[in-house]
Parts: sequence; structure tokens; C-alpha cells
Amino acid sequence: MCRFLTYAGAPLLLADLLYRPVNSLIMQSYQARERAEPLNGDGFGVGWYVPDIDPAPCVQRSVTPAWSNRNLQNLAAKTRASCLFAHVRAASPGMAVNEANVHPFAYDRFMWMHNGVVAGFHKVRRRLRDSLKDEFYDMIQGTTDSEHAFVLFLNSLRVPFGEVDGAEMRRALVETIASLNEWTRAAGITEDSFCNFAVTDGQVTVVSRYCSGEGVAGASLHFSRGRRFECLPGGLCDMHSVAQDEQAKSVIVASERLTDDPTDWTPVPDNHTITVFQDLRVTLDRISL
Amino acid sequence: MCRFLTYAGAPLLLADLLYRPVNSLIMQSYQARERAEPLNGDGFGVGWYVPDIDPAPCVQRSVTPAWSNRNLQNLAAKTRASCLFAHVRAASPGMAVNEANVHPFAYDRFMWMHNGVVAGFHKVRRRLRDSLKDEFYDMIQGTTDSEHAFVLFLNSLRVPFGEVDGAEMRRALVETIASLNEWTRAAGITEDSFCNFAVTDGQVTVVSRYCSGEGVAGASLHFSRGRRFECLPGGLCDMHSVAQDEQAKSVIVASERLTDDPTDWTPVPDNHTITVFQDLRVTLDRISL
Amino acid sequence: MCRFLTYAGAPLLLADLLYRPVNSLIMQSYQARERAEPLNGDGFGVGWYVPDIDPAPCVQRSVTPAWSNRNLQNLAAKTRASCLFAHVRAASPGMAVNEANVHPFAYDRFMWMHNGVVAGFHKVRRRLRDSLKDEFYDMIQGTTDSEHAFVLFLNSLRVPFGEVDGAEMRRALVETIASLNEWTRAAGITEDSFCNFAVTDGQVTVVSRYCSGEGVAGASLHFSRGRRFECLPGGLCDMHSVAQDEQAKSVIVASERLTDDPTDWTPVPDNHTITVFQDLRVTLDRISL
Amino acid sequence: MCRFLTYAGAPLLLADLLYRPVNSLIMQSYQARERAEPLNGDGFGVGWYVPDIDPAPCVQRSVTPAWSNRNLQNLAAKTRASCLFAHVRAASPGMAVNEANVHPFAYDRFMWMHNGVVAGFHKVRRRLRDSLKDEFYDMIQGTTDSEHAFVLFLNSLRVPFGEVDGAEMRRALVETIASLNEWTRAAGITEDSFCNFAVTDGQVTVVSRYCSGEGVAGASLHFSRGRRFECLPGGLCDMHSVAQDEQAKSVIVASERLTDDPTDWTPVPDNHTITVFQDLRVTLDRISL
Repeated sequence: MCRFLTYAGAPLLLADLLYRPVNSLIMQSYQARERAEPLNGDGFGVGWYVPDIDPAPCVQRSVTPAWSNRNLQNLAAKTRASCLFAHVRAASPGMAVNEANVHPFAYDRFMWMHNGVVAGFHKVRRRLRDSLKDEFYDMIQGTTDSEHAFVLFLNSLRVPFGEVDGAEMRRALVETIASLNEWTRAAGITEDSFCNFAVTDGQVTVVSRYCSGEGVAGASLHFSRGRRFECLPGGLCDMHSVAQDEQAKSVIVASERLTDDPTDWTPVPDNHTITVFQDLRVTLDRISL
Repeated sequence: MCRFLTYAGAPLLLADLLYRPVNSLIMQSYQARERAEPLNGDGFGVGWYVPDIDPAPCVQRSVTPAWSNRNLQNLAAKTRASCLFAHVRAASPGMAVNEANVHPFAYDRFMWMHNGVVAGFHKVRRRLRDSLKDEFYDMIQGTTDSEHAFVLFLNSLRVPFGEVDGAEMRRALVETIASLNEWTRAAGITEDSFCNFAVTDGQVTVVSRYCSGEGVAGASLHFSRGRRFECLPGGLCDMHSVAQDEQAKSVIVASERLTDDPTDWTPVPDNHTITVFQDLRVTLDRISL
Repeated sequence: MCRFLTYAGAPLLLADLLYRPVNSLIMQSYQARERAEPLNGDGFGVGWYVPDIDPAPCVQRSVTPAWSNRNLQNLAAKTRASCLFAHVRAASPGMAVNEANVHPFAYDRFMWMHNGVVAGFHKVRRRLRDSLKDEFYDMIQGTTDSEHAFVLFLNSLRVPFGEVDGAEMRRALVETIASLNEWTRAAGITEDSFCNFAVTDGQVTVVSRYCSGEGVAGASLHFSRGRRFECLPGGLCDMHSVAQDEQAKSVIVASERLTDDPTDWTPVPDNHTITVFQDLRVTLDRISL
Repeated sequence: MCRFLTYAGAPLLLADLLYRPVNSLIMQSYQARERAEPLNGDGFGVGWYVPDIDPAPCVQRSVTPAWSNRNLQNLAAKTRASCLFAHVRAASPGMAVNEANVHPFAYDRFMWMHNGVVAGFHKVRRRLRDSLKDEFYDMIQGTTDSEHAFVLFLNSLRVPFGEVDGAEMRRALVETIASLNEWTRAAGITEDSFCNFAVTDGQVTVVSRYCSGEGVAGASLHFSRGRRFECLPGGLCDMHSVAQDEQAKSVIVASERLTDDPTDWTPVPDNHTITVFQDLRVTLDRISL
């Protein structure tokens, strides 16, 4: 299991999400609140877009813990982004801590993160790979269920590198979950898969909260929308609210609530996706497989 | 704060101390039991002696967490030692996580580890350095209180690189604590220093349990002595006991009890040193400054 | 010895200096042309300013070789800067390869790099440190001559954290060289020091080309000024020239010529400083000690 | 391309092969003599056997350059081995520098290293994998041709984890080369493959010198056999010779001659394997595909 967050909206200093909130992602790297095991110390990654330079994201990843990384600290204090992915990793037992296994995974203009585990993944890996077109098969660099799910997602897109809208991204993400379910079931695996996946092309972000088990809650996932997310010099961070019918200008989706103010956060319901569109509209949709 | 252990005795597989016990040092790297903050993920180090090759120890250190390090895992499964130091680090706030700051520190045939903190160290660092002979001044590679305490210890030895027995090592260690106390007091520092120091020359090991505060308990420290420390294939580890008047053949001194059997472990009393002599006799002595 | 470059001018993609030129800094990390030993594989660092966020620079450093670093590659392809320092390191024998020893060194709004060596540095280190005010003494994190020279420079500034102009920065840099010379001479050191230092506060950059030996050439140093430094899609990079009396808009100072076109580059004369002012005027001044 | 060496014989200090010879493997990590590109700075690995503890080797690998690694330096000065593999890597373009790609690769009691390149490997990777039994398919951790060749070798063994003698190891190694050739040819690849592979089970070592191109010399490979390989305190290293009919007690196989004495070294002929048996007999055999 891991912890992640996504941000879309007005340019925001990375430190305002990663370092300053009382339950910032860095805090979650060693003292996560909403999972039994508080430690996510097996590397980290951040990725953001600089659209006037390149449609592909700028990704920075490391196998060392996030909490002591001076490069991340420095970068976060000097960089603003309007579309950000960030992830702190807790490697599943047996998964190597090496750079190829650190999230977010990136390919072309897409980024992907995972919080969870595909049950019995080693038993379906070969079948998953066999289903891939060569161009996606060749992309795989590491050994994680998470990266393989990303490649499966890309393989599921109808026009992978052409026009892709939010509906198509959501469809491919749900198809990815369906395929994983089918193969794990066929392999006789009875444990539950936890599939909180996040994907973006720099314009639209889709995040799932999903557990394959009947009546089992998915891993925690929250979102926050408002006029602006702001951290005051004293350290207090807050999402400035919008009126009910007003358009939000900032949307955060995160494994854990970053702030203590409960009015800032709404849980994503179990077995749903949340889609954040380019105009920052947000929709919640049930996952029907 | 950190966690450490020392071993002296019959050749023992490193894994039997680092990996196999229920509360092994690796376990303590992410789930320490006897300190409030369970995480010691800012690097690790091990050092042991191969006396038929060299009187100086073989030291392996890394800034990455111990729990995921494959080199350590491999080495521990294939190496036996009769005199071992091992340490997992939790960097004090502001202390950099870099290789020069990882324990054990080694110089010539000595190794040194620290669990604790010298209060207000940055205010006494210059004075400490000014007290050093050039040869010790020049040894300093990093910025920690721990390494500076080591160098102060070496500077306090009467014949640093000649004949040094257990009594002289203990005397220099106590003098080191006394100097640190004097300087921090002179600098007006009112916080307590925690000085669990461990030093060895490959023959004798001296470890202190010390807190400068009146009536304040030092950080946890335990020892275990017996005929043999053994881990069974099933994973259960145990110190085989000796009769009251029998000579032990294995001595462990550790920040935390490695096993759940309370008869295996004796706490080192507050403000005492424990000395493990070459014949594996053990003495406990009050620290009088 | 090492290789470095500085850039000041119109916002430029980092990759256009670090990766694309035929003799880019990354190229120099493993195949430097203008020094006998072609390898600069002991870590690297880059630093640039984001003035609308913070007057202190954004610094990214690593102990791994520059040529294989994916984070640097990604960052350089997505980041533009108008004031940049970049450095690839060849550790002097005995100097540890750890993060505290990687250039550029940064403090407050200043950055500092060094290509060269202070002769017999270990013999003057203590004297150098003894000359420092406490606030600068406490800044030292590593063991290199280069970082110590930086701290000496800061200690030499009349108003270190107030108003500092180019003349004052140059004065302090020359005083730094003079002090190092005096102390090495007093210590009986007869080898030559090589002091190509670069310093900036984000507004003005001063770089020295200096060797303490009578008639001995300093390490290579070149500059290039023009309307714009541009890399074409095909890979060819070029400094677009300005008329003699026209104001340049881009200035590079570098250990080695990045391009093969000799008209792009002018050597900095031996024992001179080059100052690049905020309006991109450039002056060359003889170093008189 | 890379550089490697193997050792079999009387227990020898690792430093006597890795550090002390004039053209030691560490020297070859930045100044290789017998290949056009002198740099092998993309990580390193060593592996040796401790048969009284475990039939599987002790492997230590790192993605950082060998020349500055203090752990390796320390370990090499304190460890003796009678069967050793050591490798310094120059990553092929496009191959990631991450821990899963560093040699020697190890599985069960086998170790494997490669100096060379399988031409057009990305075009045959999928076919290679499809040929594997599940248990070997699942072993793959990284992306290199070298690791895949190792897995193919294991898959080619008749009784992979039972009794394997030198003849069978050689047969499987030659079959590995034959399969790679067949698949690259079928994929229409016209470049030459260079297949200097080394494999050992801790008892027998087989090393190939092979290039798939008609009349093209394989990458350099030499061996040295004698009574004892010794490094004198002054630094001079030498293989003490045996009489023609005397049994050697030390055998080195290496990409480059470690010493300047030409009588110490014999080239392995092109398109041959060299087998070093447990009794240190050596045979050279032509590779017939």
C-alpha cells in the first residue's frame, strides 16, 4: 500500500501540498493516519506538467524516503504546478525497491499511480503481458502490479496517442480493473485486490476507489474542491470554499485528508471513480464491471 | 535517537541478530518498541572484525533504510562474526542524511555508535573541536554530535594507538561524557543529553547508558549473556543460559530486547557502563562524573 | 578538478546547455576535452533562480554520475532559467563522494562552484575555520576545499546578507583567493592552487580563472555572449552574435567550449575575473593580490 | 560493454584482484585499456561463495561507480574468497542504470555476468520470454539482455537445480548463445552480438569469448593460472607460475590483463569457452553452434 495525491487547478506551490499541511504527503511518508501501517518509506515520485514546453510531464523519482530528500524539499519550495501527481511508496513484500518500481509511472503525456495491490499478481503477470500489443509490452521496465496495470490501461485505450477525453480515460481505467479481476479469478486467487488508480494526461484526471471484495471498503480516498488551496505563513492550510453552484478552481484528490478541517474534504464513495475535467468540474461515477 | 546492538562471542551469523529475532534490529528500523517514535529509517551500518586479516574492522554503511537493503540482507546471511556493531539511524532534526553521518564510525581499530542526542550540540561544536589535537581534528568527516563524541573519545585516550585496555576505554568514554556535560552547561543549555555510546577495539566493548538530567531515565539498554544465541529454522531465537558461576560465551548489548523471553535480558542500570571483556566477563559500573 | 558552467540571460531550457551541445556539460561528465583526465563522474549539481517565488536558488544535487541520471534529464527538458549554475564533479583523491561535497554550494541567495584545488588544503583547513565568524563556521557541512572557500567568501563580504553589488562580490572573491594563498604559503605548501571559483546572488555572477603558480596557466575558462543561445531540432547549438556595440542578451561562462564554432567563445585571460552584471554587461579584470 | 573477472583457487583477498593490480578491476572501471571506451561507471557487483554457510553466493551490487564506493573498498580489504565473480558495468544506450540491471545476476547457487551486447535485443526479448518455463519467466527482475541470457541459460539446463557438472553447464551456455543467434537472425538483425558470458555454480566456472560475426574478434578475454596470485606490499602483483605439468592452484579469467607481465596471461581464443573445473584444471573448447 502507498499514499498519493493529485492536484488540478490554479498554479500552486508543490510545498503547499507536500510539506506544509498538518497531514502533508511527506508526513504520510512516515506517519500515515488512514492505514494500519503508517510507513511509506520505499521511495517517492512527483510529476507535473509544463505545457508551454512539453505535453509530457516532468517526473522526479527516487528510491530513498521522501522525508529526508533535500532535492524534493528544494524543488517543492520553488516550483508551481497546475496539474500534479505525487506518491510515497510502501513496497509490497517481495517487490524490489528500485527506480523502475517507483510511482508515478509516465509514458508519453500520461502519468499513473497506484495505492493498493493486485491480489496474487505474480500468477497473472504472464497472462497480462501476453494480452499486450508489442508497443506496450516493450514499455515495461519494472516488476510491480502497478506499472503493469498502467501498461494494461494504455493498451486498453482505443486511440492511445491520439485524442483521448475523460470518458475514454475512465472507460479504459474501468476495463483495466475488469481485466485484472477476470484474470485473478481465473487463476484461483481468492484474496481481494485494492485498485486505487490515478491517471492523467495533463488535462483530465481520473482516480478510482475500488476493492474487488464484496462489501469490503476500498482504501481511503478523499477529494477537496474550492476556490483556492492556501497555506498561511504560520503553517495552517485551508481550501477556500466556493458556493454550491460556483465553479471550483482547485481540486485535490488524496489518499488522506491533508488538513484537519472536515469541511475541506469529501470521501470518494467505494467502488467509484472521480473524474476531474479540464474545466475543474468533478464527477463521481459508480464502477460497474 | 537510534537503535543499536553489539555482539561478542562465538562466531555468529549476522542474520541471527539483524533479521531472525522477533524484534530484530531490522524490525527496529521500522517498528521499534522501546521508543515513542518507531522509525529508524535514515540509514544503517554494520561493522565486524576479521582479525586474521586486519585489526581494523570491516564496516558497511548506507544512507538508505535497512529494511529494504538487499546487500545487507545478503551479507548478513553469509557472514559470521565474533565481534559486531550494528546501528539503525533516526537522524535528529536538521542533521543531514549523508554517508558521513551514518554509524558506526570507525577509525583505526575502533568503532563507535551513539543512541541519543547531545543537547544543544551546535552551540558546543566549535569548543569541542578547539579542544582536539590536530590528528583528531582532521578526522572529522560529518556534522553529527555522535561522530564528534567519537573523536573526543579518541582524543581522550592516553595512548590512542598503543595498548588500550577495558579500564582505559571506559575511563575515556566517561571523560567524554563529562566534557560534553561541562561544555553544554557552560553554553547555558538546559535540555538533557542522552549518551548511550558504544565503543570497541575488537577486543573489549564498552557501552554507556546515560542521561545528563537528574532523575531522568537514559534511553533503553539491555544485555544478554549465555552459552550461545541460536535461531531455530522455525524463526524462534533464544540465548541458551549458563549456570550462575559459569563463563558466558556470547554477550549481546542492545537498545531493545531482541526476543520475547524476559529471562534472556537484563536492563543496564541508568547511568552505568557495561564492559564486555575479551574473555566475555561483563561488568556494570556506575558513571561518576 | 571538475567542470562547470554559468548562464545568465533570457530564459533558456536547461537541456540546451546540459545535454544538446556537442560538448555539453553531460558530455564533459565522461569525456571532457580540455583537461587531461576526461572523467567527472563523482556527482553533479544544478541550481537556478525562480525570482517570483524566492530569492534563494533551487538546487538539485546528486552523488551519482550526471550521464545516467533520469531526474536531471527530465528536469532539464522541462525547466527554463535565466540564471543557472551547473557542475560535474571529479573528486580530489581522498575527498569523499557524499552529498555534502557536491557543488553548487548554496546559502541564502548565493551559489558557489569550484573547478580546481586548494593546494595542501588539509594543512590550512583549521586555520581557515578559526578565521570565521560563528555564523559562517556553523554553515560548513562537508570536507571540501571548495565549500570552505565559499564560506570564507561569505565571511569576507562586508554586509553578507544586505546589499551586495558586483564590485563587492568581486572584492570578496579576490580576498578569498588572497587568504587561501597566504595560509598555504605560511603552511609551507609549494604546490600550486587552482582557483576557478564561480559565485552568484542571482543577479550578478563573478567567475575567476586563477592559478597561484608564477607563469602557470589556470584551468580552462571561456565565455560566450550574444543575442541568444539556440539549439536547433537537429542538435546543432549556436550563440547568435550581437554587433560589437550591441548589448548581449545571453552570457555563458564555462570550463569548456560547449560548441565547435570558435567564434562563439572567448577565453577568460589567466588570473582574471569575469563579472556578468544584471544588465548582462561583462567585464574582465586582472586579479591583483 | 563492461569488464569482468572470475577467480577460482586458494582463498584470496578480494583487494588483490579488485584494487591492487596495476590494471585492477577498479582501474578498469574508469580507465579500461582493452576497449575503445574506457569508462565502466554504471554500477558494479561482486559475488563469492561461503560454502560452509550456504551453497548460494554472497552478492553485493550497487548502481554507483565502483571507484568511489567505500563499502566495496572496505569489504575487499577484509574478505577472502576461493570462488569470486566481479563486474563493472557500462550500460548499453537506453538500458536503465538501476539495481535490477547490475551484474552478477544470481539465482539459487548460480552467478552470471556478461560483457558484450545481444544485437537488437529488444526485438527478440518477447520471443525469448515466451520460450521460458514459468519458473524461469518469473525470475526476471530487470530489462537487460544479460539477465535474460542468464534466465535462458537456466531454462536450458536439463536438471536446473539438481546435479550439474561442467560439461552440462558448458552445453547450456553454448545452447544459450545458439538460441540468441537464431532469434536475432529470425528478427532480421544484421549487427553482431558479443557474448562473453561467465557462469558458475561455485564449483565450476565457464566463460565464453564469442562474437556472432564471421571473422569478427570477440571482446578481449584472458586467463592466468599458477601456484598463487600475490600482491606485494609495494603494490606489485604477480601470478606465481607452475611447471608445465603441475596443477595450478589459482585461476583468473578476466576481460583485461590485470598485470603488466605478459607471461602471466594467455588470451582465450575467439569463439571458445574456457572451463575451470573444481580441481582447477582448465580446458579451452571451440564453440560449435
